[in-house]
Amino acid sequence: MFHHVKELQFNARVSKPDVRFARLLLEQFGGPNGELKAAMQYFCQAFGCRKAHPDKYDMLMDIATEEFSHLEIVGATIQMLLTGVNGELKNAADESDLNKMLDGSATKENYIHDAMMNPHFFIVSGGTPTLTDSVGNPWNASYIMGMGDLTADLRLDIGAETSAKLVYENLMKFTDDVYVKESLRYLMTREVAHFQMFQAALDSIQPNFPPGILQSDPKFSNKYFNMSKGDDYEGPWNKGKSSELGEDWQFINDPHKHILETNGLLNETAKGTDRTEKTVQKGNRALSSKRKNEVDTSNSFEKGILHWSKYDNSGEEKSMNTKKKKTI
Amino acid sequence: MFHHVKELQFNARVSKPDVRFARLLLEQFGGPNGELKAAMQYFCQAFGCRKAHPDKYDMLMDIATEEFSHLEIVGATIQMLLTGVNGELKNAADESDLNKMLDGSATKENYIHDAMMNPHFFIVSGGTPTLTDSVGNPWNASYIMGMGDLTADLRLDIGAETSAKLVYENLMKFTDDVYVKESLRYLMTREVAHFQMFQAALDSIQPNFPPGILQSDPKFSNKYFNMSKGDDYEGPWNKGKSSELGEDWQFINDPHKHILETNGLLNETAKGTDRTEKTVQKGNRALSSKRKNEVDTSNSFEKGILHWSKYDNSGEEKSMNTKKKKTI
Amino acid sequence: MFHHVKELQFNARVSKPDVRFARLLLEQFGGPNGELKAAMQYFCQAFGCRKAHPDKYDMLMDIATEEFSHLEIVGATIQMLLTGVNGELKNAADESDLNKMLDGSATKENYIHDAMMNPHFFIVSGGTPTLTDSVGNPWNASYIMGMGDLTADLRLDIGAETSAKLVYENLMKFTDDVYVKESLRYLMTREVAHFQMFQAALDSIQPNFPPGILQSDPKFSNKYFNMSKGDDYEGPWNKGKSSELGEDWQFINDPHKHILETNGLLNETAKGTDRTEKTVQKGNRALSSKRKNEVDTSNSFEKGILHWSKYDNSGEEKSMNTKKKKTI
Amino acid sequence: MFHHVKELQFNARVSKPDVRFARLLLEQFGGPNGELKAAMQYFCQAFGCRKAHPDKYDMLMDIATEEFSHLEIVGATIQMLLTGVNGELKNAADESDLNKMLDGSATKENYIHDAMMNPHFFIVSGGTPTLTDSVGNPWNASYIMGMGDLTADLRLDIGAETSAKLVYENLMKFTDDVYVKESLRYLMTREVAHFQMFQAALDSIQPNFPPGILQSDPKFSNKYFNMSKGDDYEGPWNKGKSSELGEDWQFINDPHKHILETNGLLNETAKGTDRTEKTVQKGNRALSSKRKNEVDTSNSFEKGILHWSKYDNSGEEKSMNTKKKKTI
Amino acid sequence: MFHHVKELQFNARVSKPDVRFARLLLEQFGGPNGELKAAMQYFCQAFGCRKAHPDKYDMLMDIATEEFSHLEIVGATIQMLLTGVNGELKNAADESDLNKMLDGSATKENYIHDAMMNPHFFIVSGGTPTLTDSVGNPWNASYIMGMGDLTADLRLDIGAETSAKLVYENLMKFTDDVYVKESLRYLMTREVAHFQMFQAALDSIQPNFPPGILQSDPKFSNKYFNMSKGDDYEGPWNKGKSSELGEDWQFINDPHKHILETNGLLNETAKGTDRTEKTVQKGNRALSSKRKNEVDTSNSFEKGILHWSKYDNSGEEKSMNTKKKKTI
Amino acid sequence: MFHHVKELQFNARVSKPDVRFARLLLEQFGGPNGELKAAMQYFCQAFGCRKAHPDKYDMLMDIATEEFSHLEIVGATIQMLLTGVNGELKNAADESDLNKMLDGSATKENYIHDAMMNPHFFIVSGGTPTLTDSVGNPWNASYIMGMGDLTADLRLDIGAETSAKLVYENLMKFTDDVYVKESLRYLMTREVAHFQMFQAALDSIQPNFPPGILQSDPKFSNKYFNMSKGDDYEGPWNKGKSSELGEDWQFINDPHKHILETNGLLNETAKGTDRTEKTVQKGNRALSSKRKNEVDTSNSFEKGILHWSKYDNSGEEKSMNTKKKKTI
Repeated sequence: MFHHVKELQFNARVSKPDVRFARLLLEQFGGPNGELKAAMQYFCQAFGCRKAHPDKYDMLMDIATEEFSHLEIVGATIQMLLTGVNGELKNAADESDLNKMLDGSATKENYIHDAMMNPHFFIVSGGTPTLTDSVGNPWNASYIMGMGDLTADLRLDIGAETSAKLVYENLMKFTDDVYVKESLRYLMTREVAHFQMFQAALDSIQPNFPPGILQSDPKFSNKYFNMSKGDDYEGPWNKGKSSELGEDWQFINDPHKHILETNGLLNETAKGTDRTEKTVQKGNRALSSKRKNEVDTSNSFEKGILHWSKYDNSGEEKSMNTKKKKTI
Repeated sequence: MFHHVKELQFNARVSKPDVRFARLLLEQFGGPNGELKAAMQYFCQAFGCRKAHPDKYDMLMDIATEEFSHLEIVGATIQMLLTGVNGELKNAADESDLNKMLDGSATKENYIHDAMMNPHFFIVSGGTPTLTDSVGNPWNASYIMGMGDLTADLRLDIGAETSAKLVYENLMKFTDDVYVKESLRYLMTREVAHFQMFQAALDSIQPNFPPGILQSDPKFSNKYFNMSKGDDYEGPWNKGKSSELGEDWQFINDPHKHILETNGLLNETAKGTDRTEKTVQKGNRALSSKRKNEVDTSNSFEKGILHWSKYDNSGEEKSMNTKKKKTI
Repeated sequence: MFHHVKELQFNARVSKPDVRFARLLLEQFGGPNGELKAAMQYFCQAFGCRKAHPDKYDMLMDIATEEFSHLEIVGATIQMLLTGVNGELKNAADESDLNKMLDGSATKENYIHDAMMNPHFFIVSGGTPTLTDSVGNPWNASYIMGMGDLTADLRLDIGAETSAKLVYENLMKFTDDVYVKESLRYLMTREVAHFQMFQAALDSIQPNFPPGILQSDPKFSNKYFNMSKGDDYEGPWNKGKSSELGEDWQFINDPHKHILETNGLLNETAKGTDRTEKTVQKGNRALSSKRKNEVDTSNSFEKGILHWSKYDNSGEEKSMNTKKKKTI
Repeated sequence: MFHHVKELQFNARVSKPDVRFARLLLEQFGGPNGELKAAMQYFCQAFGCRKAHPDKYDMLMDIATEEFSHLEIVGATIQMLLTGVNGELKNAADESDLNKMLDGSATKENYIHDAMMNPHFFIVSGGTPTLTDSVGNPWNASYIMGMGDLTADLRLDIGAETSAKLVYENLMKFTDDVYVKESLRYLMTREVAHFQMFQAALDSIQPNFPPGILQSDPKFSNKYFNMSKGDDYEGPWNKGKSSELGEDWQFINDPHKHILETNGLLNETAKGTDRTEKTVQKGNRALSSKRKNEVDTSNSFEKGILHWSKYDNSGEEKSMNTKKKKTI
Repeated sequence: MFHHVKELQFNARVSKPDVRFARLLLEQFGGPNGELKAAMQYFCQAFGCRKAHPDKYDMLMDIATEEFSHLEIVGATIQMLLTGVNGELKNAADESDLNKMLDGSATKENYIHDAMMNPHFFIVSGGTPTLTDSVGNPWNASYIMGMGDLTADLRLDIGAETSAKLVYENLMKFTDDVYVKESLRYLMTREVAHFQMFQAALDSIQPNFPPGILQSDPKFSNKYFNMSKGDDYEGPWNKGKSSELGEDWQFINDPHKHILETNGLLNETAKGTDRTEKTVQKGNRALSSKRKNEVDTSNSFEKGILHWSKYDNSGEEKSMNTKKKKTI
Repeated sequence: MFHHVKELQFNARVSKPDVRFARLLLEQFGGPNGELKAAMQYFCQAFGCRKAHPDKYDMLMDIATEEFSHLEIVGATIQMLLTGVNGELKNAADESDLNKMLDGSATKENYIHDAMMNPHFFIVSGGTPTLTDSVGNPWNASYIMGMGDLTADLRLDIGAETSAKLVYENLMKFTDDVYVKESLRYLMTREVAHFQMFQAALDSIQPNFPPGILQSDPKFSNKYFNMSKGDDYEGPWNKGKSSELGEDWQFINDPHKHILETNGLLNETAKGTDRTEKTVQKGNRALSSKRKNEVDTSNSFEKGILHWSKYDNSGEEKSMNTKKKKTI
């Protein structure tokens, strides 16, 4: 269950209205790298690990809830930046007053220009945040990723924090308002913090490569196909040892010739690797069994009923197996 | 700021896995009438009335937060209904075990059939809820409505509760699981409760018709155009007094003839109403002024800074002008 | 079947081209609160009540057809506001003529600026209306709502008229063209008229609360959960009698404590209401039976065939059971 | 302005409910090749040629209005195929009656299976058509195409009729209901009729190739680049004369070698064509001037006002310059 | 299999950065008429004719691959037009340098203005092309059309080339950069070339009208319904012989009267045509059989396996039944 | 520029038609984690690093081109799995033959059932792949991510490979066709190979944490907010050193109390870290300068023109500064 308190997690402030920056900031309210995306991604992933990985569930819900709280900070900042828009729209009957809008100096032409640049604030939402990105695309759930496997999900979450961090970094170039910048910097920093939380959680699961269960086929895991010819370069991505499996990269300089010679790779052989089909299959079975077991044992029906939560009347402080007591 | 507690607001339970009903239930997780739509609609609207209408803000945030909590109930129920899916996917190496899935009797053919019917649970989300409706359309923010005016927004919210109530009513026909039905009935009932909250809030604002500021043109507010001919009917919508303004409905039986006679309605005159252009303009000015004033006076910058929240170190219990003390 | 006549329902005019306002006006051509949304919503809902509620079908088709006619008015106005754009694009070979565009004073820079602000008019649609909102989101059918139940559908339609009214009200602030304002005011007024038609139709159906068939659970219908803490307010939405059912609001000040005490609400009891589980079930059965009967008796197959329309060669005037004769 | 009459343009009938075919038929109700797409595409294109090409405007509005009428036929058929769904949903209180649904033999399992296959009919729309395609994608306006130039638009319309024809052809394989097939065949045939209308209109505009104003560059208009190697074929598309311009196709067997030799085609020369840069520029200027003139002269403001329609009180029969009197 | 070479197919150049035109040009990078749409449409259609029509497959893959190469040209041009944006964003720490951006004269205000007009380049993509149209709608696959029948698909492809040609024609009006215009003209010309390739391929299939297999019903193929009344016109689309079938157009002046008289067209008769139900059915059977045979015979499984490609170690030059040897 | 050769990169085969698995496999053809997403993501990102990071450009284009080639493999496999569908649709005239479809044993009912489950293959695409995911959502470009910064983009690409790997792993459970599994395993393995290439490329850039330019604020980079209460857990994500910056995690047990005490975090202080505001600013300036310089120096206009490619007539083998010669 969620609660809400009226105070924002961060004391967001603005020094003057700024319709244009309000629009840019929408990118992190309803954009594909924004706070709602992060909140909903972690919230949705959390369902899957509630039973089998309660520690990761706890972390995902901590961060998801913080992202919801950040969404509120972003929305509140946009709302403050839009100060004056709603009042002016209420002034529906008397147009002569239009000149005096906002800071007193804006002309009607400026006002209309702002409306043209940001029509949804002025003719649809009445000066409140819209759940869109900065050009008006409605937020949609194809922004959310999750595969039901923490070795995949946590990597996707690191990606989410990465792109969100970049957008805040970019946004800071387009406002001079020190109070707004202060909030943006706080939000940017939290993405860096969350990145490290996800990385630590990923590291705590072993093995975590490749993501999922099945190992890769040694015939193809270390081949590099030179599909784009001319101006070719060497690097650790096609020469030397591969980063995770430590196999020797095999560089296929002329892929077309190679597939003709190998009957479309059906006759390909493994080179530069110690892994064999036998070790792969053995590994697959072992990890399959382990992971299936983790999931299955945590989902037992008790007397024909599956519960999500347990309710304990003695109060929050003492309830449940809280393994953490430390405060700050 | 949001908090989360691990207990669901309602003790959701299931008696057996049911992939198919899990898919149907997605409609209220990520569908256009579902819990996220409601939560985000009220949350977004709330920003606009934080300053000028703190009582409505309080109500909107109370209900928005409850809807987030309902979203969690729906997601948890879907997750419980999908018990077994994730474990079986982890069993990636050994296919011979496939027959024993779920309740022990499902054959591989059934399993594949379920996957075909609900591919995203099986090949994408790994047995966790997806933020889509029941046919797989990703949730998107064009589901959300809000105009920055409570006389409009609260009516849109009544609509949201209405359609959500209907979907729960329909869903109940497609499951036999008494525990699931119990949760659905709870959720359905809350839509009825919220409907009445919004109606009460709307009634507390006067005048609230028409929504917004401007009155309608008396020449056109009580005309009924018979645009669909044959099998015509009389009813209180085209005969007698109009429901809100109390004007006499004027029935235009042959609209084409009528527009030819009135130069495309430019020569239309007001009939069956006491309202005149003069009273309309007077009313417009009065309401404009009143509503603009409410908004403007609540958005004052203090020493060149606008804050969203005030922080009071003395704790939640005593903070702020809480006008409500009653508990249950 | 639809017909079209070349005259618009309202004599729409413009006094000069205005690319920027043309773009804003798209909001009501292809936006989520616009004329196509209204037209298609009522048109789609109408199918469901053709047989069981022919009077409501008649009203829905009257209004739907008027909305299509309003869509044409909006499109024609946009087209007139875009005068000059298409001709200039045809002038593809001779760029020296570019300065003389539109009203004779626009420079090439202005022309390009307009194109940058409204690219689709200039590089895609060739100066004709696009079926998008004012920022370019294509119209989509998730804007349309309908539940196959008039006690729900008519409430959703009231919502549609509400938001459309507000958009027209807002749009009027952004044009000085008296002819355009004249059309906008007409269109705005019709939303007010339609609102009242839908309200009257809804009132003519009894009971109409709650929408749909099933009554709410008395244990949960009058609880108010204080989910957002601090700065709490009392109002008729959480104190006194509820608006429709007349039950006493029960204010839950600390929801977390409450759900711990009630085993996740499973042990909740009804308070402040006279309704009981028994009266609810009785009511459900009665209304179920009544409504099912209405639908079923109207959908009878005659000799193994179901027709939609009856065709009567004697002409429109006398055909069918027209209960309405009145003209204006 | 649009009118509606209660009779369908075609006497659509069904012999029994068929939820599954109802779902397939949605493809032509709210799908990308369906009736709404056609109706809206022609309706939107028509705005642009209202003034300069009133004969084409007349044709586009005739066909657009017929497509709206076909949309109604498709929707009515879907509604009839869904007979029983809505009534059963109204039967919300008494589940014991579920067995007797539809044709009397369907079991509850069948009913639930149908719901799983077509969830939106059962849990959202209450047995009425949804404005989606057959898998549930909401109709959207990116289906609509129009460039503000009849030499382009009419070709796009031929494409629209082409794909609609194919869908109806395919649909006929999936129903045995002779009445439904009768309607489908009528609708399919009308696409063939419309195709020919658009082709005739396109032929009546000269020149109409290439579409738009500007001629192509003779250096590149007859080159064929062999970008996909192996298993190459000759045909009239890369050998002999080109279909419209009558130039000799030039086959570039090794495009990479060719671009290296021509400095990225900058040094390319015209071959196999009589057209020259000089004739191209002359042609561009002539057509530019002609087409710009057509548009500009038709868009004159009279006394500072632009009207869309003229209204003539003397009635439809005599009004305007009707050049057509023939009846059938 | 695809290859890539680092050189563009056309030597694209720019003479100065131009953020605004970069945004307009997105229309052909990620817009509905752009290069990706064309490339993916032909690529997807090609799968269906790989076996039965290898010559058309060859042509479709030649053109698809060229369109991918054009997509690269457009993207490279956008990237060059955005020169300076990315560098300036990297300058995240030192804002004092902002004035010196781009061509040395842009002020911070200009920079911010550009960001407001094109937010995604500045705050999301970091100065690289985004796969959207010019207003920011993400490219989506509903732009792609294909029916699995070349008599339909090739017509849809002619439509695709038509609209793409128009967009390039329009774009040329909004840049003064001669190098950019040079590239645009090349790209525009290639649409004209492709148009003729598709037309030639369509002409090589007989019969190709109507598209698909089934002939039209002679009762309805030559009727013209006058659905839009007033200001009616005659033209070859409603008078004389129809363009493809050569039937006499039958003009229905009053469609409502006509459907009442014909029992909703059920009693309609064929007029002005020599085709009869008998000739139609005979033709349907003949074409059905022929086309089914073409498809079926080309899809044979060899020893229980279906291959897509054959691999021949002797090298590309001699492989397969190349019927084309000519070079340029 | 792209080339195509007719042979697939992998010799994809199928042993029998399977419409249902064809539909599942669409997930990797047009789904959010599929081959087109990967291809387009790397292709779009590549534009941004063409000049400043030609080695990463080479790698991105190598992998992008391979992903296009994988898209072709997936499409070819779907097409082979759909063998029979198109031929049967061509059989439009003679329904009696329907029983003999596919493998000779399918009944009409099965055929119709398949069509209901996969309507787009049967009534729209005519048995060819559609560019959608497995439930029919059209592919859209919001799947693509890129920030114009390799320290971000490569992490997003690792995420893309991660999710694609999981989908292939899941898909393998739903087919028994050994040839199809063979192709799926190849494709899955390549995702593992690409993952390692991206990781190696990321490691070759230093510093690469945090992604982008700006360092995080030491006051907030190591705080952990316990936003989800009850059932709390300790782990390396909230206790000990943070993974990248090596700061000491600070656990905030009661976030609400904490923000009240710190005036909404404005009074927060840095703890458990050696970083200071001064070191942060110094680092920001240094990295800013370095990265801006890399970009700016690589984007120089030569004589007022910016080229994308250089063309060298002497042939591909010797052209450009190829630093790689090794073959396999």
